[in-house]
Amino acid sequence: MWELIYILNLVGTVVFAISGALTASDYEMDGFGAVVIAFITALGGGTIRDLLLDSHPVGWMGDTNYLYAVLLAVLLSYLFKRWIVSLRRTMFLFDTIGIGLFAVLGTQKALGFEMSYSIAMMMGVVSAVFGGVIRDILVGRVPLIFRKEIYATACLAGAALYLILIQFSLPDYLTLIIPIVCIMIIRLLAVKYEWSLPGIK
Amino acid sequence: MWELIYILNLVGTVVFAISGALTASDYEMDGFGAVVIAFITALGGGTIRDLLLDSHPVGWMGDTNYLYAVLLAVLLSYLFKRWIVSLRRTMFLFDTIGIGLFAVLGTQKALGFEMSYSIAMMMGVVSAVFGGVIRDILVGRVPLIFRKEIYATACLAGAALYLILIQFSLPDYLTLIIPIVCIMIIRLLAVKYEWSLPGIK
Amino acid sequence: MWELIYILNLVGTVVFAISGALTASDYEMDGFGAVVIAFITALGGGTIRDLLLDSHPVGWMGDTNYLYAVLLAVLLSYLFKRWIVSLRRTMFLFDTIGIGLFAVLGTQKALGFEMSYSIAMMMGVVSAVFGGVIRDILVGRVPLIFRKEIYATACLAGAALYLILIQFSLPDYLTLIIPIVCIMIIRLLAVKYEWSLPGIK
Repeated sequence: MWELIYILNLVGTVVFAISGALTASDYEMDGFGAVVIAFITALGGGTIRDLLLDSHPVGWMGDTNYLYAVLLAVLLSYLFKRWIVSLRRTMFLFDTIGIGLFAVLGTQKALGFEMSYSIAMMMGVVSAVFGGVIRDILVGRVPLIFRKEIYATACLAGAALYLILIQFSLPDYLTLIIPIVCIMIIRLLAVKYEWSLPGIK
Repeated sequence: MWELIYILNLVGTVVFAISGALTASDYEMDGFGAVVIAFITALGGGTIRDLLLDSHPVGWMGDTNYLYAVLLAVLLSYLFKRWIVSLRRTMFLFDTIGIGLFAVLGTQKALGFEMSYSIAMMMGVVSAVFGGVIRDILVGRVPLIFRKEIYATACLAGAALYLILIQFSLPDYLTLIIPIVCIMIIRLLAVKYEWSLPGIK
Repeated sequence: MWELIYILNLVGTVVFAISGALTASDYEMDGFGAVVIAFITALGGGTIRDLLLDSHPVGWMGDTNYLYAVLLAVLLSYLFKRWIVSLRRTMFLFDTIGIGLFAVLGTQKALGFEMSYSIAMMMGVVSAVFGGVIRDILVGRVPLIFRKEIYATACLAGAALYLILIQFSLPDYLTLIIPIVCIMIIRLLAVKYEWSLPGIK
């Protein structure tokens, strides 16, 4: 079970990092820029979460596999860019798995630091979406997430569902998987039916 | 006394958060964007101060009332936008109280972490103004504070005055209130007479 | 030896801060903006490194000389702007010394926190280049380093060389100076021959 989560975490990191490397490529950055943007897209959210929680070593600093996952992702993006772009649907699916996973695991981690439920939910959302926010700032565009999809809201709903499920004595894997799947479904439906949140008019 | 400071802190948070939510609205962000921008405007400066000082839990992570203050502010901005905009003068007054309060309390907190006077003053300024700096970066504009008003300078003057006053055995409330009022007066005069700092030509 | 490193560190801080102040001037910021940009250019990279490593007090918070070095730099930029601009070559040389020094000392510091070699190298690069990244974001341009020079790659090579040299029982000063000189040479050659890294096409 925990091994599966660990592997999914690394896969999520690779997918997030590929999306970062492709963004860097869209902005005509060099190889160094691509690594930095890929790294921050994949691991920036978790880093902010860990700094806020005072959790040290920060995830990727204590386990070099995350760094290798990012480097692998950039290498794949260099070698197979055209092929990867043609896989947009598959990539989107893994991206959605990654977001769900990061949101739920982030919430779980914050609870371990005795945070209240509302702060734990925030930490879940931060883990899942802030990497993308920093990426957008670095390439000089207003963060997509402030304008599009109900991406973050899906994470929030999943985190809330997780906090409800831990009240029951369900098996661990169900407590984790149900909210992850819930986040995935909301996001897929949101994209399909073009749901969006209202703004302040 | 401390209860009054706590309440003023929350009121300052609400006012800062409303100004953040209105900014998000100017940039046509959705509800999620509005909450994030409001949150960061109100609590970003204090968060950076606490991370730099290694003060954990970070203010709003240990007291959920700050989060509720932000959510309330966003709700108010949704419901009463037109009315709030018509209150610009009142809002500006509370904003100025908030800045003065955050600057002086930030300085005080840094002293508690055995920082030197010059670093403590910096922490005061960071508490008061960096939320606005991050807000501006997130919406993609060069931080206003680098171009306009002598806003930060007022905070610096107030922090310095606070450091002078603690040398004397004045009652606590005077030591706090005199520099806050001083910051307010400088800022109000600066806006009225359009004072500004010279740049490097 | 350590005194020399300390002095070079302060000189590097002054030079980085001057380049920050001149950038602020290019963007027509006021004096406060100039101090903030100068400060962040010079000390931002080391601050991020220290926060990631959980090293407290953060460098400049425990030694006020760094703050004074920044203020001196801004003052010099105000008083002698024309003269400093005419010294671009000398400034560039000191900037290169500063980068080499920050990269190697950052790597060394990370090793003291029991980081793996790959993470230590990252911390070296972060120390040397992230101040400039934040400066660019604050003035609203895409970080130069993602597009130009093989600046960061030079730091990476120097950090790697340092990690090789510490395997041998060389005198301390050689272990530090050889990689610093190596970073300087790569950068100077890179600028002279306009080397650059390929991007993802």
